Amino acid sequence: MPDCLFCKIINKEIPAEIVYEDDKFLAFLDLHPVNFGHTLVLPKQHFGTFDELPNELCGPMAKIMQKIMKSLIDVLGYDGVNLMQNNRPAAGQVIPHVHFHVVPRKLGDGFKHWHGKDYEPGEMAAMGEKIKLALLNYDK
Amino acid sequence: MPDCLFCKIINKEIPAEIVYEDDKFLAFLDLHPVNFGHTLVLPKQHFGTFDELPNELCGPMAKIMQKIMKSLIDVLGYDGVNLMQNNRPAAGQVIPHVHFHVVPRKLGDGFKHWHGKDYEPGEMAAMGEKIKLALLNYDK
Repeated sequence: MPDCLFCKIINKEIPAEIVYEDDKFLAFLDLHPVNFGHTLVLPKQHFGTFDELPNELCGPMAKIMQKIMKSLIDVLGYDGVNLMQNNRPAAGQVIPHVHFHVVPRKLGDGFKHWHGKDYEPGEMAAMGEKIKLALLNYDK
Repeated sequence: MPDCLFCKIINKEIPAEIVYEDDKFLAFLDLHPVNFGHTLVLPKQHFGTFDELPNELCGPMAKIMQKIMKSLIDVLGYDGVNLMQNNRPAAGQVIPHVHFHVVPRKLGDGFKHWHGKDYEPGEMAAMGEKIKLALLNYDK
């Protein structure tokens, strides 16, 4: 994709601190890490969002994330890892090329998860029905 | 796992608003959703963290997340989706049974991502080297 920053990194038109590369995937350090070592993992082929990613790429991409996660915890000594993946601007997606964030964490580093709401009586069952019904649109 | 809340939901010992179930996976609504429809997707077999999840389960699990994501955007009218997955208490993991959060988002709903740091000169390359070296511990 001509104007895609991540495609330019994949094509080596823009530098990045690449930690893993194979024929289908690339992983490099986020320029503005939550904690140092925060890594982005992405397919080389351009897809915008996670639902567009061909499912046969998901397992191999997960394997790379699993190895980066183990490296961050077992070798670099981090205490935990978050995987995060943002789809569309409403969800904070900045670069429209599907990517996962592998975020190393230290106990007490202070990053908090978003606060949850509560369902009123009946609202959760109604939402569950809507999603169950919606899922019927997609085959197995 | 006897004391695992999610194993109890899987075994139907504790109720949940289940939106998807097959022989290997379950998806149900989070009790305290970031936005209504926030869904958890997990393997029925007990694994603690993402690195412990057998890789052959990752693709099929991703397929379920892709369908839930499409349902939330295309059918329920949300504007975006975050996938989030927390490993170990340092990363905010509360239930030690590996699970992904599928979080529907609305434009302007106000949830912000964690603020990034900056690397000093040389720090990023040094971190990249450490991760590259660590990755050599794990086979292809």
